[in-house]
Amino acid sequence: MPLRRSKILVKWIYENQHKMQTLRRCSSTLRYKELEENSVQATLEHVAPVEAGAPTHQPRPDTTPDISFKYDDLRVSLAAPYQLQRKPEAVDLGFGKYFTDHMLKINYHTELGGWQKPEITPFENLSIHPAAKALHYAVQLFEGLKAYRGVDDKIRLFRPELNMERMNLAAKRSGLPMFDGEELIKCITRLVQIDQEWVPHSETSTLYIRPTLIGTEPTFGIVAPETAMLFAILSPVSAYYKTNSDGAVSIYADPNVVRAFPGGVGNRKVGSNYGPTIEITSQASKLGHQQVLWLFGPNQELTEVGAMNIFLVYINEHGDKQLSTPPLNGLILPGVTRRSILELASQWEDITVKEEVMTMDRVIELKNQGRLLEMFGAGTAVIITPISNVGYLDKNIHVPTMKQKHAVYQRLKDTLLAIQYGHIEHPYAKIIT
Amino acid sequence: MPLRRSKILVKWIYENQHKMQTLRRCSSTLRYKELEENSVQATLEHVAPVEAGAPTHQPRPDTTPDISFKYDDLRVSLAAPYQLQRKPEAVDLGFGKYFTDHMLKINYHTELGGWQKPEITPFENLSIHPAAKALHYAVQLFEGLKAYRGVDDKIRLFRPELNMERMNLAAKRSGLPMFDGEELIKCITRLVQIDQEWVPHSETSTLYIRPTLIGTEPTFGIVAPETAMLFAILSPVSAYYKTNSDGAVSIYADPNVVRAFPGGVGNRKVGSNYGPTIEITSQASKLGHQQVLWLFGPNQELTEVGAMNIFLVYINEHGDKQLSTPPLNGLILPGVTRRSILELASQWEDITVKEEVMTMDRVIELKNQGRLLEMFGAGTAVIITPISNVGYLDKNIHVPTMKQKHAVYQRLKDTLLAIQYGHIEHPYAKIIT
Repeated sequence: MPLRRSKILVKWIYENQHKMQTLRRCSSTLRYKELEENSVQATLEHVAPVEAGAPTHQPRPDTTPDISFKYDDLRVSLAAPYQLQRKPEAVDLGFGKYFTDHMLKINYHTELGGWQKPEITPFENLSIHPAAKALHYAVQLFEGLKAYRGVDDKIRLFRPELNMERMNLAAKRSGLPMFDGEELIKCITRLVQIDQEWVPHSETSTLYIRPTLIGTEPTFGIVAPETAMLFAILSPVSAYYKTNSDGAVSIYADPNVVRAFPGGVGNRKVGSNYGPTIEITSQASKLGHQQVLWLFGPNQELTEVGAMNIFLVYINEHGDKQLSTPPLNGLILPGVTRRSILELASQWEDITVKEEVMTMDRVIELKNQGRLLEMFGAGTAVIITPISNVGYLDKNIHVPTMKQKHAVYQRLKDTLLAIQYGHIEHPYAKIIT
Repeated sequence: MPLRRSKILVKWIYENQHKMQTLRRCSSTLRYKELEENSVQATLEHVAPVEAGAPTHQPRPDTTPDISFKYDDLRVSLAAPYQLQRKPEAVDLGFGKYFTDHMLKINYHTELGGWQKPEITPFENLSIHPAAKALHYAVQLFEGLKAYRGVDDKIRLFRPELNMERMNLAAKRSGLPMFDGEELIKCITRLVQIDQEWVPHSETSTLYIRPTLIGTEPTFGIVAPETAMLFAILSPVSAYYKTNSDGAVSIYADPNVVRAFPGGVGNRKVGSNYGPTIEITSQASKLGHQQVLWLFGPNQELTEVGAMNIFLVYINEHGDKQLSTPPLNGLILPGVTRRSILELASQWEDITVKEEVMTMDRVIELKNQGRLLEMFGAGTAVIITPISNVGYLDKNIHVPTMKQKHAVYQRLKDTLLAIQYGHIEHPYAKIIT
């Protein structure tokens, strides 16, 4: 069977190579796969399997509806030569300022039976009705993952199935339609393949992938929308935060400001968690801090820092080095990097790993006893960002993160980067091209 | 001076009447003012003053920035005949399903010096960059007010200056630019004048006005946007909620769900307060209730109901009839209807009016002692909606709102409608055409 398919492919390439060359001249990012006709789709899928090793067409219980959009229905319209943009220099990238030449769009219409066919089109503005619920009631959610160009020049995703799971949970919480995450991974994979020249040839930069799901129904009722749009855009990025001269950030903890609350949406990646933090972050910035450490409750429990999960390294009661992060209690985003850190460090024999409630009093106690070693934030956008100072009430708590000889944050960062950029083979990394 | 301007106007009308007639045929909603050239703008402004009696060009301290957009810069492009829509029947209106022929748009660009010139254009989709902060981080806020067609066929707004004040407070809280509310009222007034035939000829319907301010900057940093768009759209509306057969709604109080929290944005009309309520409201709906009664804290304080402020009427310790609503403690939207109810009822001699904390225990106690008379929600969209049942834990608390002979809610509703529809003259109502 494979042999016969292989023959069909060779014949097809032979017959179509003139088109491939013409088109190749038009677009530096073109891949021959974009020339496929439906008739040879199956063949090509077989030859160049996407997401090798991942289970296909196995809907997830609880999070996947019966009817999802399908990768097999994907239609691709490539950008015309004049639409292609010049790629920025790596040093100018910043975070989320530049976007690639194409985007993915998938519409949902209850009246038309739900999810429509996925489309990849040239990058363009969205045409949105001014009454769309996404613009009035924050009926919107997003995800963030990255495509890394490895040392072998292959492009990898990092545990994308976790982003899909989380995206479906957020959709459920927002009255937005769910979908089969594997299908979206395949669509996104194709998008990255098309714009693969945008994946930076650098280990300090990556291609950030931003799938977004918005409610587009143009009516004013505060109810689940009948129409929605899932889109994904790609942005070549470098560092998220500017750090201080020591390479770390200073964070500000104000017990009076709150990011999330029990019964709310703090554990879902929805727009509502972010807009309300802007004013407070800007106040922290005026006080000389880069980010806000979000506390909660009368005991001032640490929850998150900026838009990152927070980690502490300290010497515990048994004299062992311990890596701790707050448990997922509904206030905290279940970060992919957070989970990976916990899983990776659990395999190390020289450190104890624990999810535990940590209060400001506890942080101060550890600091005063000289047991506090490191503090850092972790997330897809930032990877790992060391923290060297916490502004709290009228004092500063200095954290010796940058003074450790074999810092845990650095070891974790090195491990993550090694997996992401293909220095080591690891099941977390999925080669997509 | 007035005489000379008057002459210019007459001359201009004389010279341009052929255009007016042509255009009048094209658009049922056309007013001669829309034919103005810049040269006669001042003259016409003088002849037909907008917002008579309202202070002009008096920036509000604390809430108004130095540089706002100006009504005088407004440009109007009228819809072409083929763009005009058929007006729906009053019985089909619903809430926010239909929109008028025109809209207002005002862009903000930090790099271009801030607010740009206001524009009225044919109603159309917005072209939004897919990375706009409004779609990812809920950098968005809105207002809701109404234009009422009075018994005298004049069109009135209801205390629009309060909406402007609140909109500026929300902008400040969201990192969005502030503006001079009086200027926006004038722009909105003009928009309503243009689409005045959309203001229903009915006392059960109105034209709902939805000013909206969104962050449009297309970058992924969670910071205040450098670009924004303020737009206003108009929708002819009738009832917001479907009521039960008794004309009232049933509400559901679950102590485990929370709308807002101290340090959050519950007192600002931002999108983030609404999206996260959709799933919970849908659960209440499955249990047979129309809305959610939002409780807060260990004492289960009543805060809001659905998207309304909540009021109770009961017999107090002195044997007097008392109208109560929770105080503005940061968790509660400072409603225009709420404030108007408090102000109006304070002038009545037969009722005590109080802002006070009310807990579920207190509601149950009042009910058990036979002192609870009425419960209702109030807001611009709903006016006043009586509540006859509260589902709480595993029981139902029946409220005899609909059984009162001279119900306070009905008296308040009648008074508000009388002001809004011009049955009585009142300073709350501003005649705009």
